Amino acid sequence: MRKEPVLRDVQNTSKQIAPFVHRTPVLTSQSVNSIIDGEVFFKCENFQKTGSFKMRGASNAVLSLSEEESKRGVVTVSSGNHGAALACAAKLNGMKSHVVTPKNTQQVKIDAMKGYGANLIYCEPSVESRESTFINIQEKTGAIPIHPYNDYRVITGAGTVALEIIDEVKDLDFILVPIGGGGLISGTGVVVSSLRPNTKLLGVEPESADDALRSIKSGEIVPSDYPPTIADGLRSSLGEKTFPMIKKFVSAIHTVSEKEIISSMRFVWERMKIIVEPSSAVTMAVVLNNPASFRGKKTGVIFSGGNIDLSYLPW
Amino acid sequence: MRKEPVLRDVQNTSKQIAPFVHRTPVLTSQSVNSIIDGEVFFKCENFQKTGSFKMRGASNAVLSLSEEESKRGVVTVSSGNHGAALACAAKLNGMKSHVVTPKNTQQVKIDAMKGYGANLIYCEPSVESRESTFINIQEKTGAIPIHPYNDYRVITGAGTVALEIIDEVKDLDFILVPIGGGGLISGTGVVVSSLRPNTKLLGVEPESADDALRSIKSGEIVPSDYPPTIADGLRSSLGEKTFPMIKKFVSAIHTVSEKEIISSMRFVWERMKIIVEPSSAVTMAVVLNNPASFRGKKTGVIFSGGNIDLSYLPW
Repeated sequence: MRKEPVLRDVQNTSKQIAPFVHRTPVLTSQSVNSIIDGEVFFKCENFQKTGSFKMRGASNAVLSLSEEESKRGVVTVSSGNHGAALACAAKLNGMKSHVVTPKNTQQVKIDAMKGYGANLIYCEPSVESRESTFINIQEKTGAIPIHPYNDYRVITGAGTVALEIIDEVKDLDFILVPIGGGGLISGTGVVVSSLRPNTKLLGVEPESADDALRSIKSGEIVPSDYPPTIADGLRSSLGEKTFPMIKKFVSAIHTVSEKEIISSMRFVWERMKIIVEPSSAVTMAVVLNNPASFRGKKTGVIFSGGNIDLSYLPW
Repeated sequence: MRKEPVLRDVQNTSKQIAPFVHRTPVLTSQSVNSIIDGEVFFKCENFQKTGSFKMRGASNAVLSLSEEESKRGVVTVSSGNHGAALACAAKLNGMKSHVVTPKNTQQVKIDAMKGYGANLIYCEPSVESRESTFINIQEKTGAIPIHPYNDYRVITGAGTVALEIIDEVKDLDFILVPIGGGGLISGTGVVVSSLRPNTKLLGVEPESADDALRSIKSGEIVPSDYPPTIADGLRSSLGEKTFPMIKKFVSAIHTVSEKEIISSMRFVWERMKIIVEPSSAVTMAVVLNNPASFRGKKTGVIFSGGNIDLSYLPW
């Protein structure tokens, strides 16, 4: 897939990946609605297969491979969720998978990747080590690289989340999406800009990983080098495919502090009784911190995943 | 309500309490189904208002009061969930509530009861202290006592959970229900025995709080004196209203160890991404420990609640 995806691509992908992913529920919470004095709709990709939305893009990428490519297997770099999703999608389609992951990846995410049969290769938590390790294993195995977000097949798969939430809730004023490498928000943008041009698409990232905000301000991609945020899925830099899409589709980017991420996550666990990971909780943090902005409005919040090590909670 | 409830009572109650409770979702998990090699359906009362099924019985009890009684308010004893539910139901109907609670009640449950406006009165964690404190406050306030389970209005309200799950899943082979004082399983028994006579109703309690099993074996109520189980909602004795209903409706009672409760709870959090409290996790523990019994079957599991202090997790 060499061209930026359009709505039709996302719609077709939604049908193709259907046997490999869940249609996740959209939940509401009366206590959230009464705190905000508005309506908030939570798209729960924490209930997705492998515990995150990444299963959608990974499935689409794997399904796009030719028979010859499939035999070579797939390879990627991931701090966990994309790696687990790619390994699972590969396994479901009878392929091998190799995942380069930083040494400091959470044990629970390492276990998940292994559980889905990934061949894991550890690197240092730096851009240089990650890239050299990746090139090395790719050359050795001949496997097909599936980038976690800077890949139109992956972006298109991620966009299927948006198709589902706007199908269930017709007139959202806002949709809030976390920004790591920008795949999820780019795919969401394709759908929302076509089908719901009046819905504002808001991106959210940790203050300590605000490279998307700085990229937008400076007009070029500001790289991120694994900043120490608890939102481990949001440490990546934008890619040259996601950056122009974010510029085109996103109305505003909000940032939230580490403290706000943790208290938002705890709020969701305590009040909604569902488990979201820190990278998901950033969106809810914006709503909780700015209730006036969402008062009387209909707001969609994408909970991107729910993979977290229960032995090391931040409270 | 002076007579043991019948199906029609539960059906009427279901309509009456509808404005005050949620119809909670029935969830499934592909990973659970593939581990068990059967189908398991989870009725998620952890998503109920106030975080547990107790809101159903409390709402029904409060709605049953005359105008004169309503003015006197309500009073109960509770280790948390019934107290929060009664306080919430009372508040929604403009009544005062008083809750006698043991000193060692979890802080998060104390906060919830206070949050719903309950007047809290602390007692020692013993039957004697609880009863004398209760009699004292009841006489002082003139409030109407609403027992957490040994009350047909409460039992009837609890039975509405069963109406909903059997409406969504028609041909269950088993329904597993935790047993504390026996209100939930008694109400479930009324419904299941009438509408699904072929469905086996299984009770579950902690090994260290196996008073229901011992009561059934001995033929009379064996009292429980706050045994030290992590399943804090299951420490109560049976009542003289619930014991005969349990004898009549329950096919078998299983017990599970503290270790099994904790690992079952962790399994649900990690795999299903939902928060259930230890008293809920006992049912899942039975399924996980005895997969052969549930292989090829359709099993309903009642998750009774999701209130737990996230600062003190048992792992």
